[in-house]
Amino acid sequence: MRPDGRAVDELRPVSFERDFTDMADGSVLVGFGRTRVLCTVSIEGDVPRWMRDTGKGWVTAEYNMLPGSSPERIRRRTSGRDQEIQRLIGRSLRAVCDMELLGERSITVDCDVLSADGGTRTASICGGWVALHDALARLVNAGELGEHPLTDHCAAVSVGIIDGQCRLDLPYAEDAGAEVDMNIVMTGSGSFVEVQGTAEGAVFGRDQLDELLDLASGGIATIVDLQQKAVATPPPPRPGRD
Amino acid sequence: MRPDGRAVDELRPVSFERDFTDMADGSVLVGFGRTRVLCTVSIEGDVPRWMRDTGKGWVTAEYNMLPGSSPERIRRRTSGRDQEIQRLIGRSLRAVCDMELLGERSITVDCDVLSADGGTRTASICGGWVALHDALARLVNAGELGEHPLTDHCAAVSVGIIDGQCRLDLPYAEDAGAEVDMNIVMTGSGSFVEVQGTAEGAVFGRDQLDELLDLASGGIATIVDLQQKAVATPPPPRPGRD
Amino acid sequence: MRPDGRAVDELRPVSFERDFTDMADGSVLVGFGRTRVLCTVSIEGDVPRWMRDTGKGWVTAEYNMLPGSSPERIRRRTSGRDQEIQRLIGRSLRAVCDMELLGERSITVDCDVLSADGGTRTASICGGWVALHDALARLVNAGELGEHPLTDHCAAVSVGIIDGQCRLDLPYAEDAGAEVDMNIVMTGSGSFVEVQGTAEGAVFGRDQLDELLDLASGGIATIVDLQQKAVATPPPPRPGRD
Amino acid sequence: MRPDGRAVDELRPVSFERDFTDMADGSVLVGFGRTRVLCTVSIEGDVPRWMRDTGKGWVTAEYNMLPGSSPERIRRRTSGRDQEIQRLIGRSLRAVCDMELLGERSITVDCDVLSADGGTRTASICGGWVALHDALARLVNAGELGEHPLTDHCAAVSVGIIDGQCRLDLPYAEDAGAEVDMNIVMTGSGSFVEVQGTAEGAVFGRDQLDELLDLASGGIATIVDLQQKAVATPPPPRPGRD
Amino acid sequence: MRPDGRAVDELRPVSFERDFTDMADGSVLVGFGRTRVLCTVSIEGDVPRWMRDTGKGWVTAEYNMLPGSSPERIRRRTSGRDQEIQRLIGRSLRAVCDMELLGERSITVDCDVLSADGGTRTASICGGWVALHDALARLVNAGELGEHPLTDHCAAVSVGIIDGQCRLDLPYAEDAGAEVDMNIVMTGSGSFVEVQGTAEGAVFGRDQLDELLDLASGGIATIVDLQQKAVATPPPPRPGRD
Amino acid sequence: MRPDGRAVDELRPVSFERDFTDMADGSVLVGFGRTRVLCTVSIEGDVPRWMRDTGKGWVTAEYNMLPGSSPERIRRRTSGRDQEIQRLIGRSLRAVCDMELLGERSITVDCDVLSADGGTRTASICGGWVALHDALARLVNAGELGEHPLTDHCAAVSVGIIDGQCRLDLPYAEDAGAEVDMNIVMTGSGSFVEVQGTAEGAVFGRDQLDELLDLASGGIATIVDLQQKAVATPPPPRPGRD
Repeated sequence: MRPDGRAVDELRPVSFERDFTDMADGSVLVGFGRTRVLCTVSIEGDVPRWMRDTGKGWVTAEYNMLPGSSPERIRRRTSGRDQEIQRLIGRSLRAVCDMELLGERSITVDCDVLSADGGTRTASICGGWVALHDALARLVNAGELGEHPLTDHCAAVSVGIIDGQCRLDLPYAEDAGAEVDMNIVMTGSGSFVEVQGTAEGAVFGRDQLDELLDLASGGIATIVDLQQKAVATPPPPRPGRD
Repeated sequence: MRPDGRAVDELRPVSFERDFTDMADGSVLVGFGRTRVLCTVSIEGDVPRWMRDTGKGWVTAEYNMLPGSSPERIRRRTSGRDQEIQRLIGRSLRAVCDMELLGERSITVDCDVLSADGGTRTASICGGWVALHDALARLVNAGELGEHPLTDHCAAVSVGIIDGQCRLDLPYAEDAGAEVDMNIVMTGSGSFVEVQGTAEGAVFGRDQLDELLDLASGGIATIVDLQQKAVATPPPPRPGRD
Repeated sequence: MRPDGRAVDELRPVSFERDFTDMADGSVLVGFGRTRVLCTVSIEGDVPRWMRDTGKGWVTAEYNMLPGSSPERIRRRTSGRDQEIQRLIGRSLRAVCDMELLGERSITVDCDVLSADGGTRTASICGGWVALHDALARLVNAGELGEHPLTDHCAAVSVGIIDGQCRLDLPYAEDAGAEVDMNIVMTGSGSFVEVQGTAEGAVFGRDQLDELLDLASGGIATIVDLQQKAVATPPPPRPGRD
Repeated sequence: MRPDGRAVDELRPVSFERDFTDMADGSVLVGFGRTRVLCTVSIEGDVPRWMRDTGKGWVTAEYNMLPGSSPERIRRRTSGRDQEIQRLIGRSLRAVCDMELLGERSITVDCDVLSADGGTRTASICGGWVALHDALARLVNAGELGEHPLTDHCAAVSVGIIDGQCRLDLPYAEDAGAEVDMNIVMTGSGSFVEVQGTAEGAVFGRDQLDELLDLASGGIATIVDLQQKAVATPPPPRPGRD
Repeated sequence: MRPDGRAVDELRPVSFERDFTDMADGSVLVGFGRTRVLCTVSIEGDVPRWMRDTGKGWVTAEYNMLPGSSPERIRRRTSGRDQEIQRLIGRSLRAVCDMELLGERSITVDCDVLSADGGTRTASICGGWVALHDALARLVNAGELGEHPLTDHCAAVSVGIIDGQCRLDLPYAEDAGAEVDMNIVMTGSGSFVEVQGTAEGAVFGRDQLDELLDLASGGIATIVDLQQKAVATPPPPRPGRD
Repeated sequence: MRPDGRAVDELRPVSFERDFTDMADGSVLVGFGRTRVLCTVSIEGDVPRWMRDTGKGWVTAEYNMLPGSSPERIRRRTSGRDQEIQRLIGRSLRAVCDMELLGERSITVDCDVLSADGGTRTASICGGWVALHDALARLVNAGELGEHPLTDHCAAVSVGIIDGQCRLDLPYAEDAGAEVDMNIVMTGSGSFVEVQGTAEGAVFGRDQLDELLDLASGGIATIVDLQQKAVATPPPPRPGRD
């Protein structure tokens, strides 16, 4: 039995609150249970010097935990872990973005964790995709882009082995004691973008790896459905801006 | 006529959402119009080495704007302006906290601006006070403190001169063009804690200073009423923690 | 009775030693009692990229305490307090400088505290104004500027409440124990540029604020007279440079 | 046909030069083709404060590319990529080290890349294991440890998809153009420690993932054989130290 | 003929102004022509952890140029050159200080250049020695030290080759164009502490080296005489401190 | 008798291993006994902005000790000592390089110490010269340079006084206890480039200085012979690059 009563292949309640703030080009408060991440998207009409005149754009991400997002206060600094996570988020979102359709624009997806209860990096990818979809849809609606540059959904989830049992979507209490911790990023069409599995004080066999991949595929399919519902309507106009 | 239709002595809609997140010891999402700041309070049962064995505690604040809190993305770094603001917030809250009643505890009040439309530092003080009140009330309820250490309310508001007219609670659009910008911090009993007035490309006379102080006093009295309502009920128990 | 025998509305001995060093464009060693600050002015014939082609110049300040300026050695680093002070000095001097008359020049006023006995930031403003006046007068004398860009005097002084008594120009011994500490910046014509009052472990009422503002106005009028005497003669030629 | 004529499941020439330098407790120059990494192991007889009195030790790694290790000079700084890699190396080696047998000792495995031609992180793990084995064997030989704390081999290799073809052990020329890049870390007994697969501008299916895992397993088995040969003899005494 | 009319073996006017400021334990404004350096000495009654219980003290120096000390403003940062210089000053003063007589005290000699016209590092050593002598004399006078720990004078001067001619005590105008630049530190008894000679775009022979060493020895003998005169009387009492 | 049995005027075994790595434009592993430094040379076809259109190039050096190069692990950071050393290496190599023949190219000589047993800075100069010679010879061979820009050899050695005895080429064991430590840089034609002598807890007389200079001259003549042998043949072609 899991601490929160879920089945091993069951996600926590997932929510996407669009335009939670209204200053950025896109803004989504994503929730996976008690984990909540504010994803905001900022678009600049320019690219770094080395990309000019290529006709292509670029997408990067930044990831940060607010000091009060954890019971033990977190110091304000960018740790190695944070950098590793933001590189992952950026690569994942770039995998489903057509940089030529995007044109010479620089996009930053900021993922600020308001409340951390495990799975903050995968929640960031899921919520970041929705915020990015909204920000780009606004450009399409405004006639600045001819076609929406996102080519597919992108979603992610954690899986892991706890007490020898494979489980989907680990909260902190499970994550902290997991023998194996794996983050999987997939597209809406079921292909892999990233597979990152780590054993902590244990190792894992090929059959366990297969079971974890199956669990993740199922969870991600559910998340993609929720993303589709979230962006089924066009992004609402923002007061004084749209 | 002000851009948002308010009278010169009228506050923007003010809201305090308690326990917006539930990891920290206290957490309030404060809103002044479109300005929204997440204030979280973390308590450590220890003080820095130089304060040990004094029997007294300490309160500091940190202030930060999220990158997506502004239409033009803000880089993640602590600017000189940020440091100046967090020193102000810390001094203000310390002015109404009895450090001997607090005992040897270190409190950090983190003010993370989710959406910035002027008055973020004064909103931080107002919301930080409510979050601090909740965090300390939890210690009192748990029997760890005999008496609540806050001796009075503490609230703040901005006032300024725009086109020669004195106005209360400036949003960004007014603040950016103000000839004089002033932040006032007061207690619930109507005394001053801080008076910070700055002329930008203009100077101001004694009579204008008096008018600004009157405007601020009125606004702060209203905010103190709202704080009282906010903390009229004890802080709600947090799932799995209280 | 004050520790140094002064009346509550009496300044410490104030001195301006022009061209104390002769490398910078302007250089003044300002003294308020044992507080001594070396103010040097450097002028560059260019402005930051974002100001080019505006026809306007810019004035900034840097503030620093030498390690040996205090009985307890001060580490070499720019603290948050230093940044807050240098922003204040810069704003104050800009308030009396006509940026169009200055033209596209960048001016840095460096305030290095040689000896710190309270009131270093206000002394920096008073001495910085004289050094800036000299540096710009040299440009006028050399025919590089048609008109002197300073539109008025700018001077500052600290006031505070000690043992319930309002006093002018606090040395360190008074400042350290003050209930209220206030720094006031005014022009030669008696308008306010900055009002910064802070209660430390106490609060203050409106009548006390009024008394402090009166004390400051009187002190600043005296300092402005001394500034006038200091710049009554043109800046002396520097060996090998003028 | 691969650029260097290898079969798709063939490793580059692999070499372990023990005690390449003789100052550190263990030192191995590992080569995978033109990729060469100097792995040195330093042992301190103490652990960080938070681990004291646990009876356990700790192993961390640092990874760095020398400026001249690449045709385009690399600036001396620790990038986010470097931090991500050194965290991977540390986790991998910890997975096969019994921290209780190690006792309260802190071990740092420094991996300095002398020549970079792809696969530097996996080479670092392979060479780091040999250097760590030597350093600990010296402690066993000296009677400071009763039993060798390494519980198994640990080796790693990169695999990837280039032009739709799965290949083992990618040099830079292949890595730079790979659609999918994967680093696999395994134990001598064939279990997984880490699986890190990343699509660059492409995605990959489950069958491709399986093929890559097969390729990696085969390569790692070969590397483990070479590690066994390398440590078959005890570490040679170092002049003036052993 | 030299630019300032001096003979090749003639020093610039040298001055030592004791207790130029009165906060530090010792304070000397040293002048070599237009070069002026404020040397202040701070004494702490403790040593770093690694020196405790050795019965010995330590002396370090810090060197810094004020931004306005040069016609072209100098940015506030510690450059590699600054660090090299402060290491030289520290080593030089330690060479004539008996660390056992000093006891477990940490001394910092801060050398802040107010005006830079060449020879700032050698002036710092000469003035630092006088300030250090005064600070330690105060400890002797107060009965905290039984014997003065300085065992000899320490003085320094620059020499160089300009247009093939060896010259003593180079101002900036000569230093900037020198083919060889040498800084010599000697004791009062005529022994060497440091010899640092550098060719810039030229090289030098053994005979030139000998000529430069002769020039320096003569100049340093003169400086030592001036130091002796400076410290012939005990350090004056400081208001409110001695 | 010296610890390693050498005569006072005898060098340790000196070796130059050319193209130890093959990514950089020049690469030499230099050995002085157990001291080993990897010197790599990187050439960029551009100069910093302030040198453009002068027709001249520039040579700088960077110096770094690998963490495992010393029995006590060295932290990865650039210390003040490192900066002082890399400035010395850069100046020394520039003294024998004709910047006009070099043309507008920026050269970086990276000296990474693999094993530190004293004399790492002088070994860096000796090895850096050979690596620089090779890198420039490749440009000459490729027809990119008409004439080799090195005008002479440049070599360096340490000398010192131990127990009152002058000795050549100090290993760490001697260096750590030396009363005087001196580093001498000379050209192939016997002129001085740098003379840096430092007394540690002792001073030295003119006669001792003369004896040290004689020892160094002899040692450097031997090293120059070895450099000549090392570069007697043209640099070997590098696989896939030349």
